[in-house]
Amino acid sequence: MPDQNFFSRRPALSLKDISGLSGAALPEGANGAYVIEDVAPLDKAGPKDLSFFDNVRYKEQFQATKAGACFVAPAMAVFAPKGVNLLISPSPYKAYALAAQTLYPEFKPKAETAKSAKIDPSAKIGKDCVIEEGVVIGAGAILGDQCWLEPNAVIGRNVQIGNNSRIGANASVSHALIGDHVRLYPGVRVGQDGFGFAIDPKGHVKVPQLGRVIIEDHVEVGANSTIDRGAGPDTVIGQGTWIDNLVQIGHNVRVGKGCIIVAQVGIAGSTVIEDFVAIGGQVGIAGHLNIGKGSQIGAQSGIMQNVEPGSEIIGTPALPKKDFMRQVALLKRLIKKEKGS
Amino acid sequence: MPDQNFFSRRPALSLKDISGLSGAALPEGANGAYVIEDVAPLDKAGPKDLSFFDNVRYKEQFQATKAGACFVAPAMAVFAPKGVNLLISPSPYKAYALAAQTLYPEFKPKAETAKSAKIDPSAKIGKDCVIEEGVVIGAGAILGDQCWLEPNAVIGRNVQIGNNSRIGANASVSHALIGDHVRLYPGVRVGQDGFGFAIDPKGHVKVPQLGRVIIEDHVEVGANSTIDRGAGPDTVIGQGTWIDNLVQIGHNVRVGKGCIIVAQVGIAGSTVIEDFVAIGGQVGIAGHLNIGKGSQIGAQSGIMQNVEPGSEIIGTPALPKKDFMRQVALLKRLIKKEKGS
Amino acid sequence: MPDQNFFSRRPALSLKDISGLSGAALPEGANGAYVIEDVAPLDKAGPKDLSFFDNVRYKEQFQATKAGACFVAPAMAVFAPKGVNLLISPSPYKAYALAAQTLYPEFKPKAETAKSAKIDPSAKIGKDCVIEEGVVIGAGAILGDQCWLEPNAVIGRNVQIGNNSRIGANASVSHALIGDHVRLYPGVRVGQDGFGFAIDPKGHVKVPQLGRVIIEDHVEVGANSTIDRGAGPDTVIGQGTWIDNLVQIGHNVRVGKGCIIVAQVGIAGSTVIEDFVAIGGQVGIAGHLNIGKGSQIGAQSGIMQNVEPGSEIIGTPALPKKDFMRQVALLKRLIKKEKGS
Repeated sequence: MPDQNFFSRRPALSLKDISGLSGAALPEGANGAYVIEDVAPLDKAGPKDLSFFDNVRYKEQFQATKAGACFVAPAMAVFAPKGVNLLISPSPYKAYALAAQTLYPEFKPKAETAKSAKIDPSAKIGKDCVIEEGVVIGAGAILGDQCWLEPNAVIGRNVQIGNNSRIGANASVSHALIGDHVRLYPGVRVGQDGFGFAIDPKGHVKVPQLGRVIIEDHVEVGANSTIDRGAGPDTVIGQGTWIDNLVQIGHNVRVGKGCIIVAQVGIAGSTVIEDFVAIGGQVGIAGHLNIGKGSQIGAQSGIMQNVEPGSEIIGTPALPKKDFMRQVALLKRLIKKEKGS
Repeated sequence: MPDQNFFSRRPALSLKDISGLSGAALPEGANGAYVIEDVAPLDKAGPKDLSFFDNVRYKEQFQATKAGACFVAPAMAVFAPKGVNLLISPSPYKAYALAAQTLYPEFKPKAETAKSAKIDPSAKIGKDCVIEEGVVIGAGAILGDQCWLEPNAVIGRNVQIGNNSRIGANASVSHALIGDHVRLYPGVRVGQDGFGFAIDPKGHVKVPQLGRVIIEDHVEVGANSTIDRGAGPDTVIGQGTWIDNLVQIGHNVRVGKGCIIVAQVGIAGSTVIEDFVAIGGQVGIAGHLNIGKGSQIGAQSGIMQNVEPGSEIIGTPALPKKDFMRQVALLKRLIKKEKGS
Repeated sequence: MPDQNFFSRRPALSLKDISGLSGAALPEGANGAYVIEDVAPLDKAGPKDLSFFDNVRYKEQFQATKAGACFVAPAMAVFAPKGVNLLISPSPYKAYALAAQTLYPEFKPKAETAKSAKIDPSAKIGKDCVIEEGVVIGAGAILGDQCWLEPNAVIGRNVQIGNNSRIGANASVSHALIGDHVRLYPGVRVGQDGFGFAIDPKGHVKVPQLGRVIIEDHVEVGANSTIDRGAGPDTVIGQGTWIDNLVQIGHNVRVGKGCIIVAQVGIAGSTVIEDFVAIGGQVGIAGHLNIGKGSQIGAQSGIMQNVEPGSEIIGTPALPKKDFMRQVALLKRLIKKEKGS
């Protein structure tokens, strides 16, 4: 059971409730009144717990689970052990997410402004915001309703933030327009100058960075990630994109909608990432490139050229995934031959 | 036009003014009185805007630009469209930088100390400093004139900072001597203990880190980068070096003058980077190495050996750039052959 | 001599004292009363200084050192110059660490709570803690004795921290149980939500992250590193593990005891790192893997498969170190042949 010091559980749900909120189907003859009190992983779950099976790696755990109920894809239901109530869904993990959100709604402090927060008199703050200790809000900043600013966050002058957005502890934002339902995790840096200068042996000459950072609705940016503002055009993060921790986004970069950018990725200046691109951890993408819609880039890849829409690539420099695997196998064979000779 | 909420424009400049401040030449018969009001990229610029052409990738945009004036290298002037006033410079980007700095001087708040700043009575603060909300300055710290400490920055005891330096929001500095015109971006960490310990199965034993961080004049350190203090010798960042975001500099590292270190680079302990070295993003450099003057290291390289001055290398382990390209091409051919067979 | 503005030296030690506290042996006939006042590297040390020789790379410096005394391994003692008092130890670096800790004990401010610290009335604070300016401590948090919270650190509600632990400037901790003698460096982020969501073209669906971060005793976490809390199980960092700067630890990861994780490593969700594993800088480890006890992973490696205990591997994808070296040599030969032809 989740630690109740940190997570507060809502009242129990019936299978019928869970089916309704998640869209998962109950098999014929299922007991819709069966009560679920909590969530748990397959190997820990008991008869009052809800779990999910979504990764074949955990098939044995599924076959042995004692969970009271379990989300599962239609094709996998056949592996279920007896006694588990099934909730059939084409997207078991998404269905689980919706159920878990209902059982464990996100904690939010009472809407109030801490006395130690320093808000410039010219800033406009929406209704029902939570502004915690040590927050600093600059002149002319505009916050929407129901925002949550965690302790010691710093919002620069004239920054705009929409409704229901949350800025993490010790994060800082300047030169930015931020949408609704955006979440910046602790230590995120948004809006500082891009890395723009003319190289000169007598001292590099700074190029004024005259763009902004635009973060559209429903974006998440992970802890200690950095997003520089544009040099002239804006740096843009598209709606619904999720960015993990310690990611670097250079100036003028445009990231499309619904992208996934895993931890420690670096995207150099002026590159365009189209919609629904997925980028694995520690990938580096050079500047001034175009990464086509729906591409998938494997972890640690180095991207030096444009990427066609729908590509699945990996390696440095990146290759189609199959060619990368061939290359790895070929090198192994050559080494083996050499050892044998 | 840059967002006037964030950037304030100075009065217009004539071509003659711009020629004077940037060193760019006006061609014979040019109209020195022509007035420029703003800056803009080639594809967005109109008749009152100043732009620059410095990267052949954008040649088509140059040929079609409607900019009122444009910096261009002598050899490229021939591609200019009619009606654009040319400003001829061997360094168009640098010339543009100087002009843009004049049109858009950097914003700086009024010199005052916020009431919520906590300054130890034994600290010495120079003239005309900006000390924003929530800043903490420790005992014995010494700040020069015209420094700017952004909100919630933390300056440790006995740290020294020269004139005209700026410390970003939520950054922290300890055990360091910092020069003039230095800029640490938000979230930078300077002066914490290096990663020094004796490995021991009963518990690693910390080696006291008894050096400092010395940052010379005109250095920039990007957001959330980390520079550890030395173990005995100091960690040193040489004059005019620019460091991007999320870079790690280990203890005892000495970086020379005028270097460029792109985002997410890691430099392990006791390595020496000589003057004017350029290091691409995500490069890793092992400890106790010497990287010769003027070397250029491609993005994502892994450096395990000393590098001769003037080298141009890339890869893991790094090779001369031409050999790396040969290696990439060779592997592609071998794979192709295999697919064909 | 270390800068006395930052480091305060204790009174001098005799060789006999040093032998006693470090376990190093004095050779027959040594002058146990010889007095050491300070520490210094081999090439800087004078007759009152203590040094150590532990890396063959510095053999010439050892042979020329003017140090008053030097820790050295038995087999290396023969290279000592005349006049240097030897302290013989199988672990010269560890012996040096213990001696240096005695000469330069770590600075700690007076135990008091700064007026600007904001401590929720329901939090419990142990004896003799140092709580610096701008610290924020949430409701229900529990701190042990002799803790040190540096300026502007943020401790979330119900977080527990043991005795003698230290939280760096501008660091933030939530949803975590932290042991004794733990040190989080400035800017560390502990306990924020893991990167968990169900991918959906209409908008990714957040999976509530219902686990915690457990940090056992004697762990160090470097500046600006990030440790996400678990999705259901906890994220765990085992006793005595040392983590460098800018490291990313994903949700549900379990790191064993005594591990060493160098800067900019990324470990994806649900991976298990067994005890005494050493991971070089910038390594990436995929999710759901098991890295066997005592393995050593070379810098910049990409780990896509389980690793057997005691492995020594490097590369992307990682190979046994010898095979990696063979592969590098083979590619060099092939390139050379091609250039020759």
